[in-house]
Amino acid sequence: MIVIMKPNATKEQVNVVIERIKKEGLDVHLSEGTEQTIIGLVGDTRGAQDIGFKSYDGVEQTVKITCSYKLTSREFHPADTVVDVDGLKIGDGSMVMMAGPCSIEGLDQIMECARIAKEGGATVLRGGAFKPRTSPYAFQGLEEEGLKYIREAADKYDMKVITEVMDEANLELVCRYTDIIQVGARNMQNFKLLEAIGKTGKPVALKRGISGTIDEWLNAAEYIANRGNFNIMFVERGIRTYETATRNTLDLSAVPVIKKLSHFPIIVDPSHGVGVWDYVPQMAIAGVAAGADGLIVEIHPDPAKAWSDGQQSLNEKTYLNMMEQVHIIEEAMKKVNAIKLI
Amino acid sequence: MIVIMKPNATKEQVNVVIERIKKEGLDVHLSEGTEQTIIGLVGDTRGAQDIGFKSYDGVEQTVKITCSYKLTSREFHPADTVVDVDGLKIGDGSMVMMAGPCSIEGLDQIMECARIAKEGGATVLRGGAFKPRTSPYAFQGLEEEGLKYIREAADKYDMKVITEVMDEANLELVCRYTDIIQVGARNMQNFKLLEAIGKTGKPVALKRGISGTIDEWLNAAEYIANRGNFNIMFVERGIRTYETATRNTLDLSAVPVIKKLSHFPIIVDPSHGVGVWDYVPQMAIAGVAAGADGLIVEIHPDPAKAWSDGQQSLNEKTYLNMMEQVHIIEEAMKKVNAIKLI
Amino acid sequence: MIVIMKPNATKEQVNVVIERIKKEGLDVHLSEGTEQTIIGLVGDTRGAQDIGFKSYDGVEQTVKITCSYKLTSREFHPADTVVDVDGLKIGDGSMVMMAGPCSIEGLDQIMECARIAKEGGATVLRGGAFKPRTSPYAFQGLEEEGLKYIREAADKYDMKVITEVMDEANLELVCRYTDIIQVGARNMQNFKLLEAIGKTGKPVALKRGISGTIDEWLNAAEYIANRGNFNIMFVERGIRTYETATRNTLDLSAVPVIKKLSHFPIIVDPSHGVGVWDYVPQMAIAGVAAGADGLIVEIHPDPAKAWSDGQQSLNEKTYLNMMEQVHIIEEAMKKVNAIKLI
Amino acid sequence: MIVIMKPNATKEQVNVVIERIKKEGLDVHLSEGTEQTIIGLVGDTRGAQDIGFKSYDGVEQTVKITCSYKLTSREFHPADTVVDVDGLKIGDGSMVMMAGPCSIEGLDQIMECARIAKEGGATVLRGGAFKPRTSPYAFQGLEEEGLKYIREAADKYDMKVITEVMDEANLELVCRYTDIIQVGARNMQNFKLLEAIGKTGKPVALKRGISGTIDEWLNAAEYIANRGNFNIMFVERGIRTYETATRNTLDLSAVPVIKKLSHFPIIVDPSHGVGVWDYVPQMAIAGVAAGADGLIVEIHPDPAKAWSDGQQSLNEKTYLNMMEQVHIIEEAMKKVNAIKLI
Repeated sequence: MIVIMKPNATKEQVNVVIERIKKEGLDVHLSEGTEQTIIGLVGDTRGAQDIGFKSYDGVEQTVKITCSYKLTSREFHPADTVVDVDGLKIGDGSMVMMAGPCSIEGLDQIMECARIAKEGGATVLRGGAFKPRTSPYAFQGLEEEGLKYIREAADKYDMKVITEVMDEANLELVCRYTDIIQVGARNMQNFKLLEAIGKTGKPVALKRGISGTIDEWLNAAEYIANRGNFNIMFVERGIRTYETATRNTLDLSAVPVIKKLSHFPIIVDPSHGVGVWDYVPQMAIAGVAAGADGLIVEIHPDPAKAWSDGQQSLNEKTYLNMMEQVHIIEEAMKKVNAIKLI
Repeated sequence: MIVIMKPNATKEQVNVVIERIKKEGLDVHLSEGTEQTIIGLVGDTRGAQDIGFKSYDGVEQTVKITCSYKLTSREFHPADTVVDVDGLKIGDGSMVMMAGPCSIEGLDQIMECARIAKEGGATVLRGGAFKPRTSPYAFQGLEEEGLKYIREAADKYDMKVITEVMDEANLELVCRYTDIIQVGARNMQNFKLLEAIGKTGKPVALKRGISGTIDEWLNAAEYIANRGNFNIMFVERGIRTYETATRNTLDLSAVPVIKKLSHFPIIVDPSHGVGVWDYVPQMAIAGVAAGADGLIVEIHPDPAKAWSDGQQSLNEKTYLNMMEQVHIIEEAMKKVNAIKLI
Repeated sequence: MIVIMKPNATKEQVNVVIERIKKEGLDVHLSEGTEQTIIGLVGDTRGAQDIGFKSYDGVEQTVKITCSYKLTSREFHPADTVVDVDGLKIGDGSMVMMAGPCSIEGLDQIMECARIAKEGGATVLRGGAFKPRTSPYAFQGLEEEGLKYIREAADKYDMKVITEVMDEANLELVCRYTDIIQVGARNMQNFKLLEAIGKTGKPVALKRGISGTIDEWLNAAEYIANRGNFNIMFVERGIRTYETATRNTLDLSAVPVIKKLSHFPIIVDPSHGVGVWDYVPQMAIAGVAAGADGLIVEIHPDPAKAWSDGQQSLNEKTYLNMMEQVHIIEEAMKKVNAIKLI
Repeated sequence: MIVIMKPNATKEQVNVVIERIKKEGLDVHLSEGTEQTIIGLVGDTRGAQDIGFKSYDGVEQTVKITCSYKLTSREFHPADTVVDVDGLKIGDGSMVMMAGPCSIEGLDQIMECARIAKEGGATVLRGGAFKPRTSPYAFQGLEEEGLKYIREAADKYDMKVITEVMDEANLELVCRYTDIIQVGARNMQNFKLLEAIGKTGKPVALKRGISGTIDEWLNAAEYIANRGNFNIMFVERGIRTYETATRNTLDLSAVPVIKKLSHFPIIVDPSHGVGVWDYVPQMAIAGVAAGADGLIVEIHPDPAKAWSDGQQSLNEKTYLNMMEQVHIIEEAMKKVNAIKLI
């Protein structure tokens, strides 16, 4: 971190800044230019990034150089982290496929979803039992009953379960049934929940916040890693922008950015990314080409009857067709990865 | 709610939609135009807004007419709600002033803040004991110790306390010390927390999410009201946009919009809105002129030494000067309100 | 401008950067910290801000210190610039009022608008003869005929004219009729048009781009000033965000930000800012309290019959009522300005 | 288009709306529900979309059903349009490759760029002679001299030229040298320029505005098509969002959306999309997988010495490596297209 003083800053103003830095147990590297003085902080500056130097008299600007996360950074852990979900490897160069309905609506429905998902090649079954809904009058999920159904369906088809937990109070319950804990977009910065998940050690899929920056997302992962849980995967699910032609704007460039800055795998969710089922297959394969370690999509035996997110769910036919396309690009990506320089 | 069919939709496709609507216990008003058929839903359609009609064959578009919140709407409760915080009225036409530090740093600091806040005319003391921080390595608050300090300071100066609760686990603890519960921007859609707060019946200040739409914000309030708690006030604190000259973009038009759509009061937080202390006074008075029921600002006896948010905190001199300006505009607004048509 | 090298940058990489800087005719201030080397550029660095130092091996980051505009900056010209429109002063501490229809629809309509505008206290008549419309099938304006009408109406009521020019080809024509040239939001970065306007020396109202940053806006003004035209006023008209409750998000904090960074006056356009007529009066007075040097609003004798922007136009009654409110806040602001510290 | 009346709208208010619609030469389909009246407009409603029905007493909402563009729509022209650039086909299922520097810096530089571009398989040479720059002090391009150089280089390597025109005044000059006219992001809604280009009949690459919606983009194309020029291709180059890890947010979902709504081809520009060279190759292949008809990328023999955009330019080695990857995905996409349902 460096502090840049104004051209007309006084010697005394410079000293006030220096004293404050030293109080944090850090050293100072002073550079007195002809135009302005620049003060570099030397040492572990993560704690000092909060200091409101900009409110000091004579300070022009501060520049963050070190990132505020550490365990999550590629610098700290240069090799890719491979998350092991009871034998299923995520981030090892293969492409993991997760599919299932938005909401678990009953045993029959989730069984049928599991059958379809598996047929297309998915190894992880998704489905929500606790649903975060904008309106309190919308369907909020089957809760524990739903968790039982998805576990049963996944077991029958030899799949893993991914499902969302919305609060610490239900974390233990959800952990009893799921293989991967999903943190929803609205909870990306629910720090107490992240810490609690950190303590479980369970694989966790951390969705990007509705308007989360990549930097905030990496820091959110740090809350989990900092409690000892390194079984983290990121999920890009689109961000909020002014564009309304799609539900969100799927930010596929987040994939190479995350790959550069962090060692954890990243999954792409084209269903929430675009919000309209007929754009999902195209964005799924674009996600694979962007370098994702996996995909998570919403499917439903009869989308028109889905209790939620029907408009973005694929039916059996479109899902299976999409999976054929995904496999073609998956194969092509092996060749791409074999030759690529960066 | 209405469903608009495509120009070439078949009779059968229309019937599928109608059947689905009837399954929800609703009636249908059918309008068969020369160009396209329009299907109106008749009855309480709040539950039906989730149905993914857009995934139905032959459907062009759906239009939400009824809003998905009810108790929060001005339609349901035409008169302004006045929140009573132990005798302090918010939303009765007077302007409530809340001031204090970002973080409670110690007893001396919060005492000094209370003295300054009170001198400027504030009747509510703000200060965080649980701090949601982007990085897990940043200062996270003094927790219960901090709650004790702020209570003591507020009592000494005969003020009310407003402080943030971050999770259900600490709700009871926070309620023991505070008069107003603050829900932070990151928790606007932490629905489990909203429901728990709803059950307490305590006055609650609901901050707008970092990229919360006004519609989502009103629905978030509905989660609280739906559990029987009508002591709600909104807090506009700026939204995330592409602009970086200010920390957030303070959306003052949210004030008249909320006033039109809801009966609950709304407070403006210029400190987080702009994030730079020298813009705060100007935006504070603009907030008053926009029709806010109150202001909440960050102050600090010595901003340069603040543990967090120093760059947006006012010192004693600038705060007291700002309050003089606020009182001038407050008086002027009484005249404005006496004549205004809308 | 400073260039921050990576912690592991080699001596040679540092030298490549230094050589490049010297090639620009600039000096270098080198600061070799224990952790990283920082290279400061000494001299007029505006031209060097384009160099893609980030593509150099070993470079971590560059930091812009000097802003890229000069004539527009408060630093260059500490006193407020007062624009003189043929005797009408803008930016001298008084509040200039501009009102009129979105489009000039005929002589009767613009005459009636002028009468109403004047009655409320406006001294400038607005109205578009060339209309930038999203669709080519929408009404594009009466062109020269419209310019004649607005001139005639303004002259009758002893007002000034402000009207938009959309391209260089019509600049001379528009200048023949108008007192103030308006640059619309879509043309904020139409640099050829800005340069041409710069050469006319005419007063110009530069609207903020639909998603223009404040920095880009100041640089756009620099294009005009750089050709010798200092008769510039900024117009804040709302920016594009994700929120749909209002047409745009009126960014009133742009007012104090512009006042701090530049010496040119700034006008607020609440009509385009919110896009719904019943929010306009409230945001107009909020704009005055934010420190604007003037307002520009859309009015229409019969908004329901307006050819464009009817939903955001005020009718006579609401406009006159708004103006009463504006005058109350205007008076109050004189008291505020007399005491304010910043 | 339909107009939805408020539940309590009077008969008279309904009649005012109906009269206004009839004045536009349109018919009305009236649907009087038990809860609210809905008025459908029958006929060519493109002109009526401007009417501010929302300002009418008793009107709740208006819903646009027909899009405001026509010639650009897939509905009007179901088959894909193939743009023919003097024998080079764009949009015929093959993948066109455009590469070159941001700015033309001299004959040697553009010659070297052409050699590299061609070696990687590009058939179109890009390079700017007129540069829209945020600051007036930045390099503005070599103008006609630059146009001569790029023409010479393209001719030598048997390539086509694409270059930007910034204003009508230089349109004829640019047309003399270029094969494809590029409309830059800042000019997407420079309607006068679009109309002038429409009259030339030349192939045109229409970049998406910095914060252009897809609907506005399609309407911008309509301005060109409406003057008789159907040689249009869209260029997705990233949109402005709050995220700063990349220069813009490359919106690859725009590719399938444009393909669904329009018949014109679409090209992806990953260089401006991400703004950092090392993310470009990954996003280039993601663009191909998203269904783009081509790519346009920035290359430079020595990016560190580029006069502009050096940080997002590929050098020879990375460009050639990227092209190998592109060809792999291009081949895979043929298989994908052969099987895909939607």
